[in-house]
Amino acid sequence: MIIVMRKDCSREDIAQVQQRIRQRGLSDHLSQGVERTIIGVLGSIYPELKDELELIPGVMEVIRVTKPYKLSSREFHPDNTVVRVGSVVIGGDEVVVMAGPCSVESEEQLLTAARAVRAAGGRILRGGAFKPRTSPYSFRGMGVEGLRLLARAREETGLPVITEVMQPQDVELVAQYADILQIGARNVQNYMLLDAVGKIKKAVLLKRGFATTYEEWLLSAEYILSAGNEDVILCERGIRTFETYTRNTLDVAAIPVIKKLSHLPVIADPSHATGQWKLVTPVALAAVAAGAHGLEIEVHPEPDKALSDGAQSLTPENFARLMDQVRLVAQALGKRVAGPAPASV
Amino acid sequence: MIIVMRKDCSREDIAQVQQRIRQRGLSDHLSQGVERTIIGVLGSIYPELKDELELIPGVMEVIRVTKPYKLSSREFHPDNTVVRVGSVVIGGDEVVVMAGPCSVESEEQLLTAARAVRAAGGRILRGGAFKPRTSPYSFRGMGVEGLRLLARAREETGLPVITEVMQPQDVELVAQYADILQIGARNVQNYMLLDAVGKIKKAVLLKRGFATTYEEWLLSAEYILSAGNEDVILCERGIRTFETYTRNTLDVAAIPVIKKLSHLPVIADPSHATGQWKLVTPVALAAVAAGAHGLEIEVHPEPDKALSDGAQSLTPENFARLMDQVRLVAQALGKRVAGPAPASV
Amino acid sequence: MIIVMRKDCSREDIAQVQQRIRQRGLSDHLSQGVERTIIGVLGSIYPELKDELELIPGVMEVIRVTKPYKLSSREFHPDNTVVRVGSVVIGGDEVVVMAGPCSVESEEQLLTAARAVRAAGGRILRGGAFKPRTSPYSFRGMGVEGLRLLARAREETGLPVITEVMQPQDVELVAQYADILQIGARNVQNYMLLDAVGKIKKAVLLKRGFATTYEEWLLSAEYILSAGNEDVILCERGIRTFETYTRNTLDVAAIPVIKKLSHLPVIADPSHATGQWKLVTPVALAAVAAGAHGLEIEVHPEPDKALSDGAQSLTPENFARLMDQVRLVAQALGKRVAGPAPASV
Amino acid sequence: MIIVMRKDCSREDIAQVQQRIRQRGLSDHLSQGVERTIIGVLGSIYPELKDELELIPGVMEVIRVTKPYKLSSREFHPDNTVVRVGSVVIGGDEVVVMAGPCSVESEEQLLTAARAVRAAGGRILRGGAFKPRTSPYSFRGMGVEGLRLLARAREETGLPVITEVMQPQDVELVAQYADILQIGARNVQNYMLLDAVGKIKKAVLLKRGFATTYEEWLLSAEYILSAGNEDVILCERGIRTFETYTRNTLDVAAIPVIKKLSHLPVIADPSHATGQWKLVTPVALAAVAAGAHGLEIEVHPEPDKALSDGAQSLTPENFARLMDQVRLVAQALGKRVAGPAPASV
Repeated sequence: MIIVMRKDCSREDIAQVQQRIRQRGLSDHLSQGVERTIIGVLGSIYPELKDELELIPGVMEVIRVTKPYKLSSREFHPDNTVVRVGSVVIGGDEVVVMAGPCSVESEEQLLTAARAVRAAGGRILRGGAFKPRTSPYSFRGMGVEGLRLLARAREETGLPVITEVMQPQDVELVAQYADILQIGARNVQNYMLLDAVGKIKKAVLLKRGFATTYEEWLLSAEYILSAGNEDVILCERGIRTFETYTRNTLDVAAIPVIKKLSHLPVIADPSHATGQWKLVTPVALAAVAAGAHGLEIEVHPEPDKALSDGAQSLTPENFARLMDQVRLVAQALGKRVAGPAPASV
Repeated sequence: MIIVMRKDCSREDIAQVQQRIRQRGLSDHLSQGVERTIIGVLGSIYPELKDELELIPGVMEVIRVTKPYKLSSREFHPDNTVVRVGSVVIGGDEVVVMAGPCSVESEEQLLTAARAVRAAGGRILRGGAFKPRTSPYSFRGMGVEGLRLLARAREETGLPVITEVMQPQDVELVAQYADILQIGARNVQNYMLLDAVGKIKKAVLLKRGFATTYEEWLLSAEYILSAGNEDVILCERGIRTFETYTRNTLDVAAIPVIKKLSHLPVIADPSHATGQWKLVTPVALAAVAAGAHGLEIEVHPEPDKALSDGAQSLTPENFARLMDQVRLVAQALGKRVAGPAPASV
Repeated sequence: MIIVMRKDCSREDIAQVQQRIRQRGLSDHLSQGVERTIIGVLGSIYPELKDELELIPGVMEVIRVTKPYKLSSREFHPDNTVVRVGSVVIGGDEVVVMAGPCSVESEEQLLTAARAVRAAGGRILRGGAFKPRTSPYSFRGMGVEGLRLLARAREETGLPVITEVMQPQDVELVAQYADILQIGARNVQNYMLLDAVGKIKKAVLLKRGFATTYEEWLLSAEYILSAGNEDVILCERGIRTFETYTRNTLDVAAIPVIKKLSHLPVIADPSHATGQWKLVTPVALAAVAAGAHGLEIEVHPEPDKALSDGAQSLTPENFARLMDQVRLVAQALGKRVAGPAPASV
Repeated sequence: MIIVMRKDCSREDIAQVQQRIRQRGLSDHLSQGVERTIIGVLGSIYPELKDELELIPGVMEVIRVTKPYKLSSREFHPDNTVVRVGSVVIGGDEVVVMAGPCSVESEEQLLTAARAVRAAGGRILRGGAFKPRTSPYSFRGMGVEGLRLLARAREETGLPVITEVMQPQDVELVAQYADILQIGARNVQNYMLLDAVGKIKKAVLLKRGFATTYEEWLLSAEYILSAGNEDVILCERGIRTFETYTRNTLDVAAIPVIKKLSHLPVIADPSHATGQWKLVTPVALAAVAAGAHGLEIEVHPEPDKALSDGAQSLTPENFARLMDQVRLVAQALGKRVAGPAPASV
């Protein structure tokens, strides 16, 4: 941490800063230039120190030098984290595609989607049982019954299952059925929930919020990691900007940035980012080309009858086409994507 | 709801749209112009219908005409809602100031702040017992002990108490101690929590999220109202924009807009919006001039020793000065602010 | 400027940074801590140095300590700048209201508006002759004829005139007619135009752009000041955010922030910020309460017939009501607003 | 255009709307439902009509149905526009890479860069002679001398040249030297400049502004097209969001969206979007995978000595590596990229 003093600061101001630093058990390093006096702080800095020091007279600015997250940082953990879910490896050379309907609506709907996902090379089945909905009047998911249907679809297709959990008291229940627990964009700073999923032994997929910076996102991951769960996957799903033509704006640079700042795997969700099924494929390809470790895609047997997110869901046919193109781009960059399953399945 | 068809749509496309509308138990109204064919939908429209219709070939755009929220809308409830908390009335002619420390840190700290708040004309005591913190390494509040101290401060000063609740399973506990339950910006779309506070008989203050539109904010209020709790107060606390000099950007127009769209009281939080104590007073005055029903302000006896949000906290002296100015502006616009308490208290 | 080195940087990296600094005629100051090595740079730093140094191996971050603008900074020029336009003083104790139609449309329209502005206490007449329009098919203003009508309205009412200039080659022409030249939001970084208005002897009102930070705005002011023109007035007119209900989001904190960072007067434009006439008055009052030195308001005799910005224009009656309220708020805070002119004018 | 009336509107309100529409030479179409009355407007609608109608009592909302741009829309011009610059075709199957230094600094610097661009498969040479700089104290380009050096580099390498023009009076001059005139992000709504480049017979590359919506961007293109110049190329270069880690946020979905809304070619500039050379390659690949017709990339022989944008410039070696990867991704999607030139050149 570096404290930049005002040009017109007094000796007393400087002394007060030094005294405060020492009171906190830290050491200081004074550097007096012609133009500016700068004081460095050494030791184990806590987040509130910045606020404290900025209130001392004569202080112009306090600049944080070290990052506020540790366990999720690449500096702390130089090698890539690889998350294993059954036989699926997320964070390696394979581009892992997670797909399925936004909401579980019926056994038939889910199984049809699951088979299509598997047939086209999808590796994980997604499906919502508890749904966060902007309006209280929208369909909020089938709840436990939806979890049971997901487990049955896993039995039949062999695909591990990812589903969202919305409150701490549901974590145990959802973990009984799911292979990966998803934390949605609206809950990225629901710290009680992050604590709760940090205490279980299941992989967690943490979506970026609509207005979450990279630093805040990695601090949210830090909650999970510091509670003891190392299997965290990050998912860029679009941020909120002034442009409203698309549902959100996929920040494609987030993928290489997160890979630089952190060791955690990072995937992308082009369905929620765009909100329009015709845009899903080009944006999915972009994410893969930028280095994403995977994709999360909404697939529905009949998008026009979906109880949620129909407009952004792909039909099985369009999903198969997307997979073909994803495979070509991934291969061009030396990565793998699972092939289509044999027709007999 | 209005469906605008493409110029090149076929008769079959139009027929398919009409059929779908009728299948859903709604009625349609066809309007064929020279340039465009437009189909109106009449009846009780559900949110997913837009997605459904947009997927039919030939449809260019589906435009929602009615607002998706009802109970929180001014159209549904033309008169202002007034929330009564003890003898304090929020939503009327008085500008109600809620103030106190960001976090409850000790009995002495809280009582000193509470007395100062009361002395200067504050009507509600704020203080955090459960604190949402961006970093897991920051102070997260005193928990139940903090709630007990808040209750004791209420006993001594007579000020009703507002404090934050962060997860559904804490709602009952917090409601035992607090007079108003606060839902923080990060939880504005934590729907399980909104449901939970909708079921109790205490007033709820719902902060706007960093990236929440007016419509989404009122839909979050709708969760609380539709669960049975009518005592909802809204609080504008700044949104996230490209400008990072201030912590957030207070959207001052939100105040008259919300008063137009909704019957619920709306207050402003200049402390979190700006993040800098020197900016709190001018922004507080702006909110009052724009018509806010109240303010929420951070006050700390020794801001430079605060465990959270020190940089944006006012000293008791600065808070008293703020109150003097708020009183002048409120009076200029025909509103009231409680006067300073007699010195002997 | 401070250079923070990576933990794993080598001695050679440090030496290379020092060498580069000295080659540029600057001096360095090394500070080696246990955790971090930090190098300070002293001397006359140029903007590109940051980029240069960040490319040297071992450098983690380069932090600018001094602000990049000088002439527009409060540090350089501690006293408030006061801009005099005829008998009107902008930047002092008076809240100066500039008002009039968005576009000059006819002699009658302009004179009716000008008389209403004067009658209600407006001090400057605004009116567009050259109009920047999003669509090439919109009315783009009357051009020189509009300038002539403005001059005539000044003759009749005694009000100085403000109007927009859009390209360098028009600066001389517009300066012949106008008392204040306005640079619109879209041209805030049209540097050729800033250079051009920096070379004339007329006051310039520089609007903030839709997506301009405080620092960039003050750097744009710096263009004008460094070209020799000291009479610069800043105008906050709303920024672009994710919220689209209002035309833009007025950043009310910009007013106290700019007053802290700079000595230049700062006013607000609630008409463009909100885009809705019903929101103009509350937002105008907010700006005055936050400390604005003035307001710019759109007034049109018949808003529903306006060729531009009708929806956000006030009728003369509504403008007079706004002025009454502005006067009350300004007086509450110890400021003045011109009174209504005698009825006989 | 559709006018939605309030529930409580009177017959007189409806009649007034109809009268106004007819006065304007348009025809109306009334549709009275149980819940709402809706009035359609037919005929040649002008942009201001929305404002006009919204001011009539009883009107709740006026919804524009047709897009405000015509010449730039896909509906008006269904086939892709292909822009030919010498032997280079932009908008077809080839991914065209434009590369070179941010600023022209010297003959040697430019020629070294130009040879490297050509050798690696770049097809157009970029280089700034007139530079828009945030600070008046930064290097603003070599001016005419820079244009001459660009022409000389074209002579030697055979690469057509793209360079920025900043004000209307320079258009003719720049057009004498350049093959493509670039309008920078800051000038995307400098309408005088758009008019000026619309009147010449050279291709124009129009960058998206920091805060320009798709619709505004296409309206800016409309200025150029409606002035008579059909050779317009659009360039996504990142928008301004709350995330400040990268210089801007590349909106990768803009590429498929623009291809859907418009017939004009669209390329991407990953250098300005990211501001960091290490992020340029992944983001460039993303843009190509999303369907971009080309890329604009900053290449400098010695980025650490660049007078502008050093931190985001690639060395010739890194540029050659980028081109290899771009080629692989483009080929995977059935597109072409020019191969490396023979070593002897």
